[in-house]
Amino acid sequence: MKRYFIYLAYKGTAYKGWQTQPNGITIQEVLEKALSTVLRTTISIVGAGRTDAGVHASQMVAHFDAGPDLETTALVRKLNSFLPQDIAIQHIVEVKATAHARFDAIGRVYEYRLTLNKNPFMTETTAYIPGPFDFDKMNAAAEKLLHYTDFTSFSKLHTDVKTNNCTIRTAHWSQRGGLWIFTIEADRFLRNMVRAIVGTLLDVGRGKLSVDDFCHIIEAKDRCRAGTSAPASGLFLTEVRYPKEIFATD
Amino acid sequence: MKRYFIYLAYKGTAYKGWQTQPNGITIQEVLEKALSTVLRTTISIVGAGRTDAGVHASQMVAHFDAGPDLETTALVRKLNSFLPQDIAIQHIVEVKATAHARFDAIGRVYEYRLTLNKNPFMTETTAYIPGPFDFDKMNAAAEKLLHYTDFTSFSKLHTDVKTNNCTIRTAHWSQRGGLWIFTIEADRFLRNMVRAIVGTLLDVGRGKLSVDDFCHIIEAKDRCRAGTSAPASGLFLTEVRYPKEIFATD
Repeated sequence: MKRYFIYLAYKGTAYKGWQTQPNGITIQEVLEKALSTVLRTTISIVGAGRTDAGVHASQMVAHFDAGPDLETTALVRKLNSFLPQDIAIQHIVEVKATAHARFDAIGRVYEYRLTLNKNPFMTETTAYIPGPFDFDKMNAAAEKLLHYTDFTSFSKLHTDVKTNNCTIRTAHWSQRGGLWIFTIEADRFLRNMVRAIVGTLLDVGRGKLSVDDFCHIIEAKDRCRAGTSAPASGLFLTEVRYPKEIFATD
Repeated sequence: MKRYFIYLAYKGTAYKGWQTQPNGITIQEVLEKALSTVLRTTISIVGAGRTDAGVHASQMVAHFDAGPDLETTALVRKLNSFLPQDIAIQHIVEVKATAHARFDAIGRVYEYRLTLNKNPFMTETTAYIPGPFDFDKMNAAAEKLLHYTDFTSFSKLHTDVKTNNCTIRTAHWSQRGGLWIFTIEADRFLRNMVRAIVGTLLDVGRGKLSVDDFCHIIEAKDRCRAGTSAPASGLFLTEVRYPKEIFATD
C-alpha cells in the first residue's frame, strides 16, 4: 500500500458540505464511493479540513491509501468520467507513508467572492450584495486581523476544538474580473470563521461599525457581538499548503 | 406613450427559451409579468429574436411601450429586485416611436463556449466536451461560412420562415479565460443554426469531416447531412446591433 494525495475542485451548492454525515449527501461520501468503485476495493479518505454546506473549493486535498501500482493519470481520467459534473479531480500524487492531509497542512487559503451587480451567470458561485461598501475601510479592519490570535468571536458555538487560536497571515479585499474578492490565509480556521469575518467586515463597509468596533468585537471573544455570517455561495477554499518534505520522491 | 428598449442578461437553464409558450416558463413571460407589476399596467414586450430552451443571453433586447414619464434608472433597480437572480436588467433607453427590437436589428452576435476540461463551476454555462479538437482546421471550415448565404443545412426543419438566407460576417474560434469560444455574427439566424454549425465544426475538429466535406454539407441544403447540434448550455446571445438612428435624442 502507498499513500496518495488527491487534489480536487467542487461546486458545493448541491452538497451538505465536505464531511460525511447522516443527513444528506457530501463530497467525501461521493468521492469515496467513486474511488472504491474505480479501484474495486473499499477506500477511505481523510480531507484537509471540512467545508460547510454550499461552500465551494477550487482546490481541496485529501489522502487515501491504495495499491502500490496506481496509474494516477488513468485514475484521474476514470474518476472524472465517473463523478458528477460538479466535482473535478485535478491530480493525484504519491506522498510519504506518514503524510496526513489534515495534520500536515501548514496553511489554508480561502476566497470570498462578492458581486455588487446582479450577475445571472454566477448566482451559485458568488454572493450578490448590492452595497455600497467602503472597501478602504474594510481593508483597514481586515489588516487588524493579523494582530490577534484568538478568534472565538468568529467561531461557531459549541464546537469540540481545544483552542480558538489561529495565525492569520493574509486578509484583504481586491478586485478581479468584476468581483470583489476577500483573500484570507491562516494556519487553521475555526468553523464558520471566514463567513463570520466577511459578514462583520461588510458591516464595517456599510458604516455600521468602525475599525475600532471591529477590534473590540475580536477582543470580546463573544460570537454574539460579530455580524451575521455572509452567505455560503461566495466562499471558496482555494489552496491547502504543505511542506515539500511530505511528497514522495522517486 | 413612448417606446423603450430594455437590455437584459439571463441564464437560460431554468427556462423553456425566450418566447412565451404553453409548456413551461419563459423569459418573455417572466419579464412581462415583472414590468406589468412594477408599472401597474399590462405591458407586452417584443424581443429581438428568440433563444431556445437552456440558451443564455449576456445581452438581449426587447421593446415595450409605456407612459412618457418613465424614470428608467429607478425602473431598472425595481425590476432587478423583483426578478429572479437568473435574469438581470442592464438598462432601459427611450427609442423612436417606430423602432422595433426585431425588425430594426441589423446584426446579432452569438458565442458558443466550450471547455475541454471539467469545470465544476461552469456546468450550466459552458459545454464540456473533452476533445481533442483541431481548432486550426475548425477555423478553416468556419471561414467558409462567409462564402455562402443559404443555410438550410443548419436550420431546424419545418419552420415558418420565408427564406433560409443569412449573411454571416464573422465566424471563428478563439481562446479566452481557459475556454474555447466560437463567435459568430450575422444579420439574422435560423432556428437552431448556431448549435448545428458548432456541432458540425466539432466533427471537423475531431477529424470526422474535412473542410471540403463541411462545404459540401452547406451546399447540400439538407439538415440530415450536418452534425448533431451542440448542447444548449454553451450558447450565449451576446449582442444585438441597431442603427443609431432609431434611438431617441433629446
